[in-house]
Amino acid sequence: MRTEQPTPLADVRETAAATAVAHPNIALIKYWGKSDEKLFLPRTDSLSMTLSVFPTATRVRLAPDAEQDTVVFNGLPATGEAERRIVAFLDLVRERAGRPVRAVVDTENTVPTGAGLASSASGFAALAVAASAAYGLGLDARGLSRLARRGSGSASRSIFGGFAVWHAGTPDAGPEEADARSYAEPVDAAGLDPALVVAVVNAGPKEVSSRTAMRRTMDTSPLYEPWAESSKADLADMRAALKRADLEAVGEIAERNALGMHATMLAARPAVRYMSPASLTVIDSVLQLRRDGVPAYVTMDAGPNVKVLCRRVDTDRVASVVREAAAGGSVHVAVPGPGARLLDEGV
Amino acid sequence: MRTEQPTPLADVRETAAATAVAHPNIALIKYWGKSDEKLFLPRTDSLSMTLSVFPTATRVRLAPDAEQDTVVFNGLPATGEAERRIVAFLDLVRERAGRPVRAVVDTENTVPTGAGLASSASGFAALAVAASAAYGLGLDARGLSRLARRGSGSASRSIFGGFAVWHAGTPDAGPEEADARSYAEPVDAAGLDPALVVAVVNAGPKEVSSRTAMRRTMDTSPLYEPWAESSKADLADMRAALKRADLEAVGEIAERNALGMHATMLAARPAVRYMSPASLTVIDSVLQLRRDGVPAYVTMDAGPNVKVLCRRVDTDRVASVVREAAAGGSVHVAVPGPGARLLDEGV
Repeated sequence: MRTEQPTPLADVRETAAATAVAHPNIALIKYWGKSDEKLFLPRTDSLSMTLSVFPTATRVRLAPDAEQDTVVFNGLPATGEAERRIVAFLDLVRERAGRPVRAVVDTENTVPTGAGLASSASGFAALAVAASAAYGLGLDARGLSRLARRGSGSASRSIFGGFAVWHAGTPDAGPEEADARSYAEPVDAAGLDPALVVAVVNAGPKEVSSRTAMRRTMDTSPLYEPWAESSKADLADMRAALKRADLEAVGEIAERNALGMHATMLAARPAVRYMSPASLTVIDSVLQLRRDGVPAYVTMDAGPNVKVLCRRVDTDRVASVVREAAAGGSVHVAVPGPGARLLDEGV
Repeated sequence: MRTEQPTPLADVRETAAATAVAHPNIALIKYWGKSDEKLFLPRTDSLSMTLSVFPTATRVRLAPDAEQDTVVFNGLPATGEAERRIVAFLDLVRERAGRPVRAVVDTENTVPTGAGLASSASGFAALAVAASAAYGLGLDARGLSRLARRGSGSASRSIFGGFAVWHAGTPDAGPEEADARSYAEPVDAAGLDPALVVAVVNAGPKEVSSRTAMRRTMDTSPLYEPWAESSKADLADMRAALKRADLEAVGEIAERNALGMHATMLAARPAVRYMSPASLTVIDSVLQLRRDGVPAYVTMDAGPNVKVLCRRVDTDRVASVVREAAAGGSVHVAVPGPGARLLDEGV
């Protein structure tokens, strides 16, 4: 593996502030379960599509005189767990850079509240890119993916645009080796022209956090390990389907992988169920679309919202049907989006 | 194993007509998957409660002059698959009895249409008892359970009242041995005073038959075998819970076993899902009941209806909550019911 050298101090001054933008992603082969909670090493490989919508923009400015970090989120000081995770992430960057200097992090997250899309993937991808530049880590895309992973596992994938696979790597190796081998990289899907329709539905009772749900599923569900094993075959099938730009196969594999993941949770003790009555109503509407000849496939994450993969040309029809099914909810449409990037600072 | 001798002909004349009554049962440890489709040998042991409601009454009368069987179901001639299954069952009885004589089977099934309770368990239990008597097979309860099994697996359990366990037996032995070792027997649950509230909800699109769903799950779901394995532990835990009359443990184990079974189906290819939006609304209402301190637990079979196990003293409250959740649906209440029995023919 390549080693990462801090950029010389002269360069650092020039990049003492950096702004990055990154987009959310939706996994078609799911990330569910960690083999190492501290290093954010996943139990299985996963594969996602980065979305064209809802970017997060994050500016990191070094603050040599400050005694602690300042974190601003959508214009307000971040507190609690949100602040703690960002400061811990900066600590990691500082350790790598060998520079203890504090920073001001200012994040604008455009994911609408309740859009059913976690902002942690775009958030930590943008933070990784901006902080790496500000602290002069000089990371390449793979290094940025590894770094982003330490903030939130799925952020490793948002470094890349289009489709990306995140490798579980070698979790049984020593920590350094394991850390080095778990990163995302792009997957070619030329010729595929998909859209993702996100149906935002009302949640039922308060949900279990995805972190808790993953842990409980791994610890108590007799169905977890077999799903993790079956997910390997799903990934191989998915790569082949993407390569031949076969949207129907991509959708079928994504749907079975997601339903399998939710099945492992249903068998956890106590059960974890993110599917609400409204989720099933949307899923039923998608099954009906398929019976009507429209290739459309569902995936779900740690919440009641349903994401529907379809051909871009079918977007309007799918969005219309899904909007009706998600009565009282809302619908967002995305296509494949770009990877994380630094904005020009104009210096 | 005991061998079954046909009753001498003298006796047969006296019992050339017989009427039996049997009740439906609901599995708390599920039967899902056959290791032998012809012999109705299950992949796993199961355990059920026979219900106090909706008996099936079946009269079998030998018809020495008839050239074929006549099957009447709720006053109308049975046709198609229903008739075929009953005639096949009679063929089996005739083969055992060494008597080719045809019969008239008249069945009155009191399960209301759409009550969410399959009538095949009570139906084949009643038919087994009546036909065994009419043809003079002279079977004891275990023999009747084995025989009923050949009509419908779960019928083996409706031979017994209260709680019954159905042994998978030794499916890998030769057919005769395997057949001989798969039967139900009663399980003591003295001190337990449960009720079962059946919430009948609207189905979504037409369902996959349980037979097809079982087969598909076994053949394609990577989660099936681990569930079958985990069901062994569930059964052991359930027996212990019944023995100490611990309704909360009985409910928890039943719920996890059922959710696990439905999870295996969700991961079948294509997925089989009997949970409808309305099912989840009822399940959510039961989870809320639990949070409110009422021990109530769900189980589901191959349909969208939800069965809720609770203490008999809580029946009214549970039925009221569930009835409201199953808006537009109906609710039935049962307590443990009797085993199959012959009615006095008055001769």
